[in-house]
Amino acid sequence: MRVTEIIAHKRDGGALTTSEIDFFIKSVTDGSIEDYQVSAWLMAVYLRGMNHRETTDLTLAMARSGDVLDLSDVLPISVDKHSSGGVGDKTTLIVLPMVAACGIPVAKMSGRGLGFSGGTLDKLEAIPGYRVTLSMAEFKATVQQHGIVLAGQSGNLAPADGKLYALRDATATVQSLPLIASSIMSKKIAAGAEAIVLDVKLGRGAFMKTEEEARDLAKLMAEIGKLAGRRVVALLSDMNQPLGAMVGNTLEVAEAIQLLHGSAPADLYEHCVTVAGHMLRLARRSNEPLEGFIEEAAATLKDGRAFSKFRQMVAAQGGDVSVVENPERLAQAKIIEEYPATQSGYVAVMDAETVGVASVDLGAGRERKSDSIDHAVGLVVHKKVGDPVATGESLFTIHANDSAKLEQAKQRLANAVTYSADPVPPLPTFYGTISSDETIQQP
Amino acid sequence: MRVTEIIAHKRDGGALTTSEIDFFIKSVTDGSIEDYQVSAWLMAVYLRGMNHRETTDLTLAMARSGDVLDLSDVLPISVDKHSSGGVGDKTTLIVLPMVAACGIPVAKMSGRGLGFSGGTLDKLEAIPGYRVTLSMAEFKATVQQHGIVLAGQSGNLAPADGKLYALRDATATVQSLPLIASSIMSKKIAAGAEAIVLDVKLGRGAFMKTEEEARDLAKLMAEIGKLAGRRVVALLSDMNQPLGAMVGNTLEVAEAIQLLHGSAPADLYEHCVTVAGHMLRLARRSNEPLEGFIEEAAATLKDGRAFSKFRQMVAAQGGDVSVVENPERLAQAKIIEEYPATQSGYVAVMDAETVGVASVDLGAGRERKSDSIDHAVGLVVHKKVGDPVATGESLFTIHANDSAKLEQAKQRLANAVTYSADPVPPLPTFYGTISSDETIQQP
Repeated sequence: MRVTEIIAHKRDGGALTTSEIDFFIKSVTDGSIEDYQVSAWLMAVYLRGMNHRETTDLTLAMARSGDVLDLSDVLPISVDKHSSGGVGDKTTLIVLPMVAACGIPVAKMSGRGLGFSGGTLDKLEAIPGYRVTLSMAEFKATVQQHGIVLAGQSGNLAPADGKLYALRDATATVQSLPLIASSIMSKKIAAGAEAIVLDVKLGRGAFMKTEEEARDLAKLMAEIGKLAGRRVVALLSDMNQPLGAMVGNTLEVAEAIQLLHGSAPADLYEHCVTVAGHMLRLARRSNEPLEGFIEEAAATLKDGRAFSKFRQMVAAQGGDVSVVENPERLAQAKIIEEYPATQSGYVAVMDAETVGVASVDLGAGRERKSDSIDHAVGLVVHKKVGDPVATGESLFTIHANDSAKLEQAKQRLANAVTYSADPVPPLPTFYGTISSDETIQQP
Repeated sequence: MRVTEIIAHKRDGGALTTSEIDFFIKSVTDGSIEDYQVSAWLMAVYLRGMNHRETTDLTLAMARSGDVLDLSDVLPISVDKHSSGGVGDKTTLIVLPMVAACGIPVAKMSGRGLGFSGGTLDKLEAIPGYRVTLSMAEFKATVQQHGIVLAGQSGNLAPADGKLYALRDATATVQSLPLIASSIMSKKIAAGAEAIVLDVKLGRGAFMKTEEEARDLAKLMAEIGKLAGRRVVALLSDMNQPLGAMVGNTLEVAEAIQLLHGSAPADLYEHCVTVAGHMLRLARRSNEPLEGFIEEAAATLKDGRAFSKFRQMVAAQGGDVSVVENPERLAQAKIIEEYPATQSGYVAVMDAETVGVASVDLGAGRERKSDSIDHAVGLVVHKKVGDPVATGESLFTIHANDSAKLEQAKQRLANAVTYSADPVPPLPTFYGTISSDETIQQP
């Protein structure tokens, strides 16, 4: 089998065979194919597309390109979640303890943020002492003992995906549905997931700008899940505005702790109990209505079980439990400044991407993978789309450690908000649900 | 300007601006863009195409990526020819002396063969002592003194094209009309050509398999010529069967010398006088009918002026003139064997590619650029499509230096010929002519 023939086959719009895809990904993994051949193939895939069978073959080939975790010795069922990235998304910090508190052990590997999208590992590291790097033995021992573990990637998961992603980023081939879907699903499958809740965000601060794009991606990933023998539920969620109120690492940990105590913005609450409900339902292999699982999950917030589980997780991973008990002991920024509304009326746009970029301006995120971040900085978003606002009222509370960066963020935020004289309807939290299992009733 | 934006622009089917193309080719030339970015762009160009203006911009950007020859101090007009490559194509050895003998000085740079396609430099090196490597000063001095020079590339011509071509070969992006046309035209323009006769071959032994493909390429190159201010005539010529009778380096030199003495197969004669006629007509900036120029060129074969000019060229470039006078002194192969027809009837197919590959089997050509070649080996093709043939009659005379290679070539040649019981019409030498200058009358 020759690499140029596989490139030509896709170039001409053919459907690659399973063995062609396996050979290609094996060659990517062992380095026997040149980067310039891979990128020509990526552009051919971008422009010619892939059918569901090809995309599933690509997913499985990438999943098998490195370690494939088997968590069956420590978990009755491995249920995972994935978010396509956004601004203010601290869901994992809240949902994982909720699910674990319901008696479903959860073992999750998360990633870091890049650009205006935050990452769970960065937020966890805002807790002094929290160890995100665990050996596989520690990872398994932790979930076995505590029913919960949340760390960085352990082992060499889907290295072919890593190579492809680096090339896609440099060759304008990122925005391809089969490449996006197979990238996400390959990492989840390599991480041992048997059931997966996918949070596909859409809007101004998401990778997918329109509902149609997000729905197509969600359907494709559900289809891959079905063909690969995994139960998948994909939620289409809003990322036109930030999720919840806090953006920045210590701020988001504080907001997560607030919600674990039962108090949080409505959108964040609804988002978290829905994701947790789906995870419980998948983990129990149930076809019962979702509502019961949402109630079960929500109960762990009211009675403090979710918070206890979170505290237990932090302790198990070496984090300072005193800051969990007293979030005001988390690192504080030196400068705290209100950013007032310049008009009266209703909030028509609260642009998630602009808010995210402003947080990067402050130092809360990284432009390049090698950049360091400042956990203490960020901002609190006081208004949601549809909220009435008066001139001079605070839109944001900015937490900064550097006056020049503060000024840059303020200039950025001038473009974050659009006002309307007429009332504006609020944004929904979810736009729909897609399932790999048609017997699952749609909420 | 960012490279990924240029890739994305072409990926989305846009027409690249002149400054985008200039920036891209400059980046290719100075190595500031990664090969994997270039190849993604090449695949996008392959699948999205380019309009005439873009293709001309690409041609000119590649032509300017290295040295651009200015031959105006030694030539009143620089008229060049280009062949798209084939089997038995010794046209340049014949046409250049014809044109020079008519008083038009010609200075041409040629290339080597690769695969089943032969190359003029390899044929010239079959003449002992002939120097194909000349300095630019020698190149100019030779044409100034003798009115003719025929050598390898001098200077660093169109290096961007060289880089693109190497990547195209490894990424299944060779067969793209804008990339093929710009590659050919950029080298001719860098070599200083003001008027160009393009010999676009089509058929079994050509890059372009169909008349339609060849016509599209010819039209595109004529259009580039017009937009770039060069007069271009493109001839569509047959390469279903070998051109002339001889295939192999010394054999082709011997056949060229025969024709310079006025004796040759009809197809080779017609081909050479037509190409020479067009070159004369372009060089004289004439709109008179082609026939007069063909007659002028043909006269140089009859009266020995073309042969004299060829001998003068060989002498000027250090070649052994005695072999030109006595071609039997050229290197001879050790084994000479006839290959008989296995059926009686008419020749329906005399497959140029298979004959070319058989000559490579014998050692006359190279599979890789680094391979050495054997000038003495090759074969003589005794039958053309349409010729009657009797069982046992010789189809080929094989000239070999190695019995194993001879056997391989014989096995190959078993697939070169198809017989027909019914008469078969002969193949045309030309299928048409396309000109950048609509005032030129079509022959």
